[in-house]
This record gives sequence, structure tokens and C-alpha cells, in this order.
Amino acid sequence: MASERAPGRYPFDRLQTFIARVLTAMGLPEADAATCAARMTEADLRGVDTHGIFRLPQYCQRIRAGGVNVRPNVRPVRENAVTALVDGDNGMGQVVMTYATELAIRKAAEVGLAWVGTRNGNHAGAGAVYSTMPVAHDMVGMYMTVANGNHMPPWGGVEVMLGTNPISVAVPAGEEPPIALDIATTVTAHGKVKLMAQKGESMPVGWMVDRKGQPLTDPKRAAEGFLLPIGGYKGYGLNVVIGLLAGVLNGAAFGKGVVDFNKDAVTPNNSGHMILAVRVDNFQPVEIFKREMDRTIREIRNSERMEGVDRIWLPGEMEASTVRERRAQGIPVAPAVVEQLRKLAVELRVSDRLE
Amino acid sequence: MASERAPGRYPFDRLQTFIARVLTAMGLPEADAATCAARMTEADLRGVDTHGIFRLPQYCQRIRAGGVNVRPNVRPVRENAVTALVDGDNGMGQVVMTYATELAIRKAAEVGLAWVGTRNGNHAGAGAVYSTMPVAHDMVGMYMTVANGNHMPPWGGVEVMLGTNPISVAVPAGEEPPIALDIATTVTAHGKVKLMAQKGESMPVGWMVDRKGQPLTDPKRAAEGFLLPIGGYKGYGLNVVIGLLAGVLNGAAFGKGVVDFNKDAVTPNNSGHMILAVRVDNFQPVEIFKREMDRTIREIRNSERMEGVDRIWLPGEMEASTVRERRAQGIPVAPAVVEQLRKLAVELRVSDRLE
Repeated sequence: MASERAPGRYPFDRLQTFIARVLTAMGLPEADAATCAARMTEADLRGVDTHGIFRLPQYCQRIRAGGVNVRPNVRPVRENAVTALVDGDNGMGQVVMTYATELAIRKAAEVGLAWVGTRNGNHAGAGAVYSTMPVAHDMVGMYMTVANGNHMPPWGGVEVMLGTNPISVAVPAGEEPPIALDIATTVTAHGKVKLMAQKGESMPVGWMVDRKGQPLTDPKRAAEGFLLPIGGYKGYGLNVVIGLLAGVLNGAAFGKGVVDFNKDAVTPNNSGHMILAVRVDNFQPVEIFKREMDRTIREIRNSERMEGVDRIWLPGEMEASTVRERRAQGIPVAPAVVEQLRKLAVELRVSDRLE
Repeated sequence: MASERAPGRYPFDRLQTFIARVLTAMGLPEADAATCAARMTEADLRGVDTHGIFRLPQYCQRIRAGGVNVRPNVRPVRENAVTALVDGDNGMGQVVMTYATELAIRKAAEVGLAWVGTRNGNHAGAGAVYSTMPVAHDMVGMYMTVANGNHMPPWGGVEVMLGTNPISVAVPAGEEPPIALDIATTVTAHGKVKLMAQKGESMPVGWMVDRKGQPLTDPKRAAEGFLLPIGGYKGYGLNVVIGLLAGVLNGAAFGKGVVDFNKDAVTPNNSGHMILAVRVDNFQPVEIFKREMDRTIREIRNSERMEGVDRIWLPGEMEASTVRERRAQGIPVAPAVVEQLRKLAVELRVSDRLE
């Protein structure tokens, strides 16, 4: 197998082991390091390259600066049969959100439905990694979070106080891959703007505006403007509601209180998340539901296409196909990232190397 | 008070009584007619004129054609402590959704959280009318529905099989009006396109495209094109997920099975809805949460505005202000609608008249 891999690609379990070793060297308990490694590798497998191993150097920098608690006491501080508020004790976001999601699944398995909120967490990576966890238990999963940095003003405003606040929803299917929506509520992400600036490309109209509301298409001028919400005032509203449910409801940061984790590695983020799990068989026998899901998915996929369109995709289908491909062919990691990871391993005296 | 009202405006309780009398004359039990009248008047009070008394003639036409069951047996067909699937027996949407929402509130009051889905329902009017009902009980409300007509293809497709599928989320506040987001997942609604055609105006780029994906700005050519989702593929995905949770999960119509209630008054709609209610005090003491909500709302509202912008609005704030104004000044009803309603009253021998 290994010999068939293209250069620059690494087996997913190789990445996962490497991440776990690095985070253990950073002081995380082995189980927590393994959890982070699993969630980050899942993001890479899904093709969400910005939320996988790419983040490891930044996470390590934050841990070194004291911005993350490597041995947190993650625990519910309020709890009943169907809800919980989990305090993450400033632990790694992946650790806190895995705990919260597993708790939601256990509660939903018993009672049918559960909503778990978290506070005092950190960046947890790709939303679909959490929303899809309940799917294996024949449950719908819904995840929301307050993004770890603000790049958008309120609708009609110029003060940057909203992030990309994403929502992810996953729904089980039968033979088809599960539906897994995972969207930011901004038209684009700040990372994409940076990438275009590096490449010297122009942004499409609708990605950003300047302080007067005029289209801003030069990514090098990004600092003079703001990201736009999807659907104008609609996406602004959705963004705020996600911030209230994932942030304010949990006593977590939202609005001006959000710490930009790209600029500040020290201040605790008090990052807020929520996960909801609901059993499908509350509403229908699982097999009947899954058959109807497959039928619906195929009805959409097989509908007539616009000229020049090769395929109609369902939410999460492209990611499912990337998972299959990357499990077999390995995960591509950019040479610059590989070099960063090599240095990190040397610094931490981790004997493991990616290559 | 009455003498201060502008011409063409009617006291909300006058509209509500009129709707109730008309629906009673159509054969609805008095309690159900009162429920429909209350929900429709609430939509009018909120300024959602397309979902209030404006719909009465269409609803009556549907009832006359046998498309709606005026004496339905609305009941849970699956139920546990925190969820229920309510079969609406093809009753009026407002009756079914009021039943479902009250059931969700009762369950959430007892256990903390509830999710109620409905099938075999009909058009229920404005989403925020339902999502805000839990707010009075210090709960967050979330509502989704499959729209009663398809005007959008899947992303990359040309077969119209998706509706405006809206989502509404309401969150309690303290002194501030509650947050109440209520958005279609399409950039615009079909009704607005029709209105622009009547006025001879051009649509902005981004509202519709033709079968080749090119911008369509002439509303008279609307039949040649499709509505666009908010945020492109993102809104398409959100639209599909709403359809799955409000439709497929409940055994209700979604996709090609959706009946266009503007064109077909006879075929049962099997309209699907969902409502979720979650108590705020699962996560925080109510008073602390409300104080933080007020603070957050004011932080956003009072942030620096873009040149030429008079005010930054929070989701639902404009509607809350319309409710205050219309409670005091009356609800404006267009002369053409008043004339339709007069005829309806004559036909039904309802002694009540709006004027």
C-alpha cells in the first residue's frame, strides 16, 4: 500500500499517532492526546485540512504559552436527564467536545433526546466531526459553536464582533453516506482570504465589503473590510443565534468578549459549543427512516443537472468520498506544514517523525 | 383610539374575531377557529403580512375543495417523555402546530427539553409565531418546516424540488425584546418576485438564475428560472437539512412529494414541521441569563454603524417594534384584500364585517 501513495501523502493512522505523541510530549494525558489526535485526523480525512494536523503547531504554541490547560477537570456543572452544561476547565477543545458529545449520546440513548452545552473550552476543529458522532447510534446530531476570532460586524455596522459561527447537522442514512452539513455562516472564511492574497488573486464580489459597504475584492486590503454573512441580514441573524445558543446560554464568550486565538495565545478563550443528539426511532422505525433517507438522497442526486455540472452533491457526500479516498491513498500534507511538524518533533524530542 | 387609526388599518382583535367567525362558518370547531385566528393575527401584528389574514381566502378555498380536514383528530402517534410525533390528520397547520408547540412546552417544563415533530399538517403561517411560544416559559424555541411549494433546484440542478424551507429560533431576553430569527433559506421568496413583476421592477442579481445558471433579473421571466439559496451551496445544504428534520424524519413530504398549495387546493399536503423547546435554566439561572442577553443585545445594537445606517437591528427586534405599533395603531390591510374578505363574509353569511 505504502508504495502506491503519492509523495506528500501520509497514512491517516501515521498522522494520528504522530499528533498523539506530540500532544503527550506537551503534557496531555495519553487518553486526551489520543482523543485530540482522533478528532484532528478525522478532520483531515474529511478534507477539512484547516482543522486537522495543520493546527498542531498553533495548538502547541498555545499550550506552551499557558493558554490551554493540559490537565483539565472536564465535568458537568449542571445536569439533568436530558441536558448538561459541561465546564471544560480551559482544556483542549477536542477533549471537551468529545466528552460533551459522548455525554449527549448516552443521555439520548436512554431518554431519546439530549442537549449538552460547554463553556471554558477551546477551538475544537471541524464541526462535522462532532455532529456525526451520534449518527453511529442512529441519532441526528446538531452542533454549533462561537468561532475563535471575530471578522464580521453586525448587519449595518462596522465594529468587528462576530465570527464565522458555524452550524453542523448530521442525519443517518441507509446505504448512502449520512448527510453531514457543516457550514460557516459567513460567505467565506478568513483563511481563504489570506490564501488568495498569497496567490495574488481577486476575491469575488460578495465575499467582503469595506467600511462603507462597498465590495472589496483585493484580498491584500482585507484589513480594511469585513467578511459578509450568507444571505445578508439572514446569515447575520443566524450567526447571532448560533452565538447565543453556543455562547451566551453556556456562559461562554460571544461578541466583544471573544479572544482571537490567531493573535493571542495566552488569554483563556472561554470557547462555547453545543451538541444535540436525538434518536431517529422517536419518530420512525430506524429501517423505514433510513430507506426513506436513501430514496430522498437519490432523488436529489439523480435529478436533472445544469449544463456543465457533472454531479449533484448532498451535504457531506463530498467529504464521505474524501474519507474513502484518503483512507486508501493517505492524507496530503503540504511541505511547509511537514517542515513545521519536523521542527516541532525535534524541539519536543519526540522520536517519532512523519517521514 | 379607533378615531386615531389611519384609514385601511384595523384593530388586531377585530381581525382576530373576523378570522375566527369565518373559519367557524367554514366548519371548524370554535376552539380551532380561535387558534387559527390567534396565530394568523400574531403574524399580522409582527408585520408578516403574507402569513396573516391575507391567507384567509386561500385557506377557505382549500377547505371548500376538501384539501383540509376541518375536524381533525390531532394526536401523538409516537410519544415519550421528551419527544412526540404528532399526526395532524390533515387539519389546519395552525391547529396542528399550536398543539405540537404546547406539547413541547409541557414536556420541556417537566424534563427540561423536548422535540415534537408533526406530519399530515398544512401551512402553519409565520415560523416565529411558534418559536416564540416557548419564550414566555423562559425557554428557547426552534422551529423548522418544509415549505408548501417548490421553487428551487438542488445546487447544480435544474429540477425544482426544494422550497423556501425556513428556520426560526427564539431566545428569551430580559428588558429587551426576545431574539426571534425567522428566515427562509432562499435569498428571496416567490411572493416578492411576483410583487416586483407587478410593479415592473428589476430584481437584484443573486435573487434568481436561469436554467444555465446565469443571473435572471426580469421578474416577468421568473418561470424560466429558480430562486437561489442563501450563501450558495451552504444555504442549499441548510435547506435540505431542514427538509430532512421537518419532513423525512416525521414521514412528511419533502422533495418531489411536496404539493404546491398555491396551485393545488385538493391534494393533502402532508406538511411537516418540527418544534424544539429547551429551558434556559438547564444551563444558567434565568435572571443571570436574561441580564447577559440584554447586555449582548445592547453591545450589538450600540456598536459603531456604517455610514448612512440609522440603526443596527437584532433578529426579531423590528417585528417586536411592529407589534407595539400595530397593537396601538391597528393592522394595515390592503383594499384588495379587504374586498376579498367582504365577499367571503357575504358568501359565508357571516354577519361580521371588517368595516
